[in-house]
Amino acid sequence: MSPKITTELLKQLRQVMKSPKYVQEPVQAYIVPSGDAHQSEYIAPCDCRRAFISGFDGSAGTAIVTEQHAAMWTDGRYFLQAAHQMDNNWTLMKMGLKDTPTQEDWLVSVLPEGSKVGVDPFIIPADQWKRMSKALRSAGHDLVPVKENLIDIIWTDCPQRPCKPLIVLDLSYTGVSWRDKIVALRSKMAERKVLWFVVTALDEVAWLFNLRGSDVEYNPVFFAYAVIGMNTIRLFIDGDRMMDPAVREHLQLDSTLEPEFKIRVMPYGSILSELQAVGAGLSPKEKVWLSDKASYALTEAIPKAYRYLTPYTPICIAKAVKNASETEGMRRAHIKDAVALCELFNWLEKEVPKGTVTEIIAADKAEEFRSQQKDFVELSFATISSTGPNGAIIHYKPVPETNRTLSVNEIYLLDSGAQYKDGTTDVTRTMHFGTPSAYEKECFTYVLKGHIAVSAAIFPNGTKGHLLDSFARSALWDCGLDYLHGTGHGVGSFLNVHEGPCGISYKTFADEPLEAGMIVSDEPGYYEDGSFGVRIENVVLVIPAETKYNFKNRGSLTFEPLTLVPIQTKMIDVNLLTQKECNWVNDYHQKCREVIGAELERQGRHEALRWLIQETEPLIRVQ
Amino acid sequence: MSPKITTELLKQLRQVMKSPKYVQEPVQAYIVPSGDAHQSEYIAPCDCRRAFISGFDGSAGTAIVTEQHAAMWTDGRYFLQAAHQMDNNWTLMKMGLKDTPTQEDWLVSVLPEGSKVGVDPFIIPADQWKRMSKALRSAGHDLVPVKENLIDIIWTDCPQRPCKPLIVLDLSYTGVSWRDKIVALRSKMAERKVLWFVVTALDEVAWLFNLRGSDVEYNPVFFAYAVIGMNTIRLFIDGDRMMDPAVREHLQLDSTLEPEFKIRVMPYGSILSELQAVGAGLSPKEKVWLSDKASYALTEAIPKAYRYLTPYTPICIAKAVKNASETEGMRRAHIKDAVALCELFNWLEKEVPKGTVTEIIAADKAEEFRSQQKDFVELSFATISSTGPNGAIIHYKPVPETNRTLSVNEIYLLDSGAQYKDGTTDVTRTMHFGTPSAYEKECFTYVLKGHIAVSAAIFPNGTKGHLLDSFARSALWDCGLDYLHGTGHGVGSFLNVHEGPCGISYKTFADEPLEAGMIVSDEPGYYEDGSFGVRIENVVLVIPAETKYNFKNRGSLTFEPLTLVPIQTKMIDVNLLTQKECNWVNDYHQKCREVIGAELERQGRHEALRWLIQETEPLIRVQ
Repeated sequence: MSPKITTELLKQLRQVMKSPKYVQEPVQAYIVPSGDAHQSEYIAPCDCRRAFISGFDGSAGTAIVTEQHAAMWTDGRYFLQAAHQMDNNWTLMKMGLKDTPTQEDWLVSVLPEGSKVGVDPFIIPADQWKRMSKALRSAGHDLVPVKENLIDIIWTDCPQRPCKPLIVLDLSYTGVSWRDKIVALRSKMAERKVLWFVVTALDEVAWLFNLRGSDVEYNPVFFAYAVIGMNTIRLFIDGDRMMDPAVREHLQLDSTLEPEFKIRVMPYGSILSELQAVGAGLSPKEKVWLSDKASYALTEAIPKAYRYLTPYTPICIAKAVKNASETEGMRRAHIKDAVALCELFNWLEKEVPKGTVTEIIAADKAEEFRSQQKDFVELSFATISSTGPNGAIIHYKPVPETNRTLSVNEIYLLDSGAQYKDGTTDVTRTMHFGTPSAYEKECFTYVLKGHIAVSAAIFPNGTKGHLLDSFARSALWDCGLDYLHGTGHGVGSFLNVHEGPCGISYKTFADEPLEAGMIVSDEPGYYEDGSFGVRIENVVLVIPAETKYNFKNRGSLTFEPLTLVPIQTKMIDVNLLTQKECNWVNDYHQKCREVIGAELERQGRHEALRWLIQETEPLIRVQ
Repeated sequence: MSPKITTELLKQLRQVMKSPKYVQEPVQAYIVPSGDAHQSEYIAPCDCRRAFISGFDGSAGTAIVTEQHAAMWTDGRYFLQAAHQMDNNWTLMKMGLKDTPTQEDWLVSVLPEGSKVGVDPFIIPADQWKRMSKALRSAGHDLVPVKENLIDIIWTDCPQRPCKPLIVLDLSYTGVSWRDKIVALRSKMAERKVLWFVVTALDEVAWLFNLRGSDVEYNPVFFAYAVIGMNTIRLFIDGDRMMDPAVREHLQLDSTLEPEFKIRVMPYGSILSELQAVGAGLSPKEKVWLSDKASYALTEAIPKAYRYLTPYTPICIAKAVKNASETEGMRRAHIKDAVALCELFNWLEKEVPKGTVTEIIAADKAEEFRSQQKDFVELSFATISSTGPNGAIIHYKPVPETNRTLSVNEIYLLDSGAQYKDGTTDVTRTMHFGTPSAYEKECFTYVLKGHIAVSAAIFPNGTKGHLLDSFARSALWDCGLDYLHGTGHGVGSFLNVHEGPCGISYKTFADEPLEAGMIVSDEPGYYEDGSFGVRIENVVLVIPAETKYNFKNRGSLTFEPLTLVPIQTKMIDVNLLTQKECNWVNDYHQKCREVIGAELERQGRHEALRWLIQETEPLIRVQ
């Protein structure tokens, strides 16, 4: 990896920062955040502006360019990568280290008195704007919205914003029609005495209208906004996608419909002016509901007194609780996904000893097997296929420069998943194709104990996921080990593989209580830098639990694994398991045999079936 | 309990609310919070204004009186008690129930347009003022500080503010001199670039100067404030307490001293004017550090631009980490406390079958045995002595109306503690003096498993206590049970039995990470309304843990029980324990035998020693 040469680009950017053609007044600094106008985790190539200006293409980072300086803030996952990808025009600001200044403090330290700091108001979330603006103002500077994105001006070969065809999801997948979703949303709006709701997150638009897209890699979403009133629906979307007869039929665009379900389709770019018109027409006590992470531009369109901001929208919360059709779809998707992985692991077991399988080949093979399954759409994230020391890099993605060959001497970690029309998968298995060392088995077994502790946990209704995080760590903590990431995230239903508002993490974020029907991942790990990584991840469904007693009639919950892929017993030190844990593994493997075995049989995949049977032999614990 | 008749009092209060003699402008509502001017948990009789005006004397509640209404907000612990103690002039506002309005919403609904709402600015914490003031202002009302407390005006027989002699704690107890504490505080102030620190919490003043008092029952504190500058020390305290030669000597009031350690003693009531003078003399960038829970009056004395507010003060954090002298003192105190409890339980075992021991007699007897121990000062909180159904009332305190006789048919729960000059204790034991039922043993054993899970937990340095809370609940959750309180609180060293900034609770409050030297309680429970209560509480010291590995060189921590009182083995269903848990109980009892046995021997308490030996027989688990 050689760094991107950015001297010329920075010169151009500094010119437009002063050009009256693009800015009302010159700006002495320009902020380039990571995100897009929807605060998406995964973004389209046309939104990779920070990567374009700096060369650094990790998933998190903020660039700030002043007349003299160019600085990049990123976190510990990306210190090395950013240092490699950026030339010496750039200063790397290592977030999380004690001596690293915040963006605000740094700006204050380098800016001449009374400076203007520009940012694209569509890219910066309202809550970030507020914090930064306050800090700058108190030091005599101004944060100013720059209407035209200054990177786009100098990015002459910027790719076009994608505008791919839509997929209509019918009722058998979604369980609830978009009309019923609108009705439910309006009733939540009425509860909070809100007249308008602005849908800004791409997965929320997709979920609400039972549509999917492919504008962003891995996330089956499309660029759109929606504004829902008590009697009106406006959908802001570009291209001829609305000409597709299936979409028109689905949205009933050509039917005579009760007016409150009539969808007005408008250009994507008209959201701001339309929202400003809504804002201008409000009378006192008429409120507009927005996510507090919506862009500054859209938030500002509504006068402050009329805004109703929440960290989670009613759509985000409704979307998290899967209905019976979605749950069944997720089950089907996980069965197909397990079939593909049984094929893959069976293939790896034969091929790895030959020394011809690299991380990239293994990842491609995984995709090949998945793509053979019904309703496969695409991967749900970039496959983490990592062997030996690469396994210790938590967000590793094999590239030619790092591509390592799998061998019988190293641990192999595969974290992968796919989008099927009926559901989204995300599974990690850690395997050894030779003989693992006692130490490797010990670490693996602690991670497994943590995985089981969460998966088998019984907890009261209303419990927040962060209260379960320590269960996953207890066995590691006992011997002085730990892992530096959360234990689980919400998973969408043929939607984003990471979604709120629930999760399992030591970070006390505002997670919503777990409810039956929610789906999260359970993925503890252990990583030894320069040596190996272990992670065991299932996607699990929150279900009611039967308990002996029922305190205050609250009811209890537990998890059911949707992922049904064998956990390599060769890696387990059975003597470290309790009898209860041993039974959990055996019951889990029994279920894998029954459910996945039947599907392998049905698909005529006999070799993979033999592999499954062999991998699901019961553990025996000698007392 | 008959309710207090408040008709006349409310009439008088409503008169002074309009009297130009006491208020600049009439106030249409007057708020009477629970607290004192130091935001203390336990308050002196002269500060029980809310109890005086309403009759309700629970520990938490806020009264608001308008021209037409009188309303009391309190939480679930006190619904019954408040309903019994208040007459029908009062409306009970049950906090936590869905339909109960907040104080702000209620005020807005009952007040005439443009009302003034009065409150004593010394009693209301600054953060509460801010919230309420904002809500009232947005509805067109005003929150106004009323300088003279309106309750004090009508409270003709109000007790005097206590002003009891001080106790000097010498270095053998405190480990660090007050001068060294001032030096450490000033270095924290320098780190944050702060010039002044205002000590408002009573236990922080006591800790800083190595003095104790008895102005408030159970809490060995005295009414005082302090203002620490980089070169000055001001102590605001009343009475002739500063005439005591021991105190003068301790504070070196009569010595020629470096000026920066010279203490200026000033009247308690002059804090506001002195602080206003400090505030008026500040130049830009000179900051004053206050707790964000300090009173509105004191916070307001410092212009906003000069305030530096934090949830925890540097004294609060330093105080929580006990030094070797304090730890040794706490050990000694707990040994003496255990001796007293062995005597008590031995006595109860003989006396309970006679049917003559009531909850109050048992509580008194506990106090009697404690008072025989060296350096005993007073109890550390009101003894919870509860049998049968009373045990299910978490904050029960026996009074003649509820006083129940202990018997061989009911579970007895005793939660009690004392202040010794060398330390503070807080211990709960749950006993049966006859034969417990299988169900009672089952519940007790789950609680014990939770207690052990926390006590034996190993966790990384830097872990916050709230991450351990679920360990205490896991065994209960498994069979659908739970308890509705936190698992532990910080404990002072011959100071308040409840102190911040650490704790173990499912509530995600801003607890500081656990550190070696911190002391917390470990007290899971189970309560069956109308039937019985179980709680097992030890005070535990955070200590470094030896682990097999040491991830990222972070080091690990665990707990050492300071409380050494047998846990009744009769209540344990051994078959529900794992071998590890069984070993924990046996090791714990072995330590009780050795340490407390030696002290009982030394004190010649042979009968109690025999009881101890019998109660600490090892458990045997049949596999």
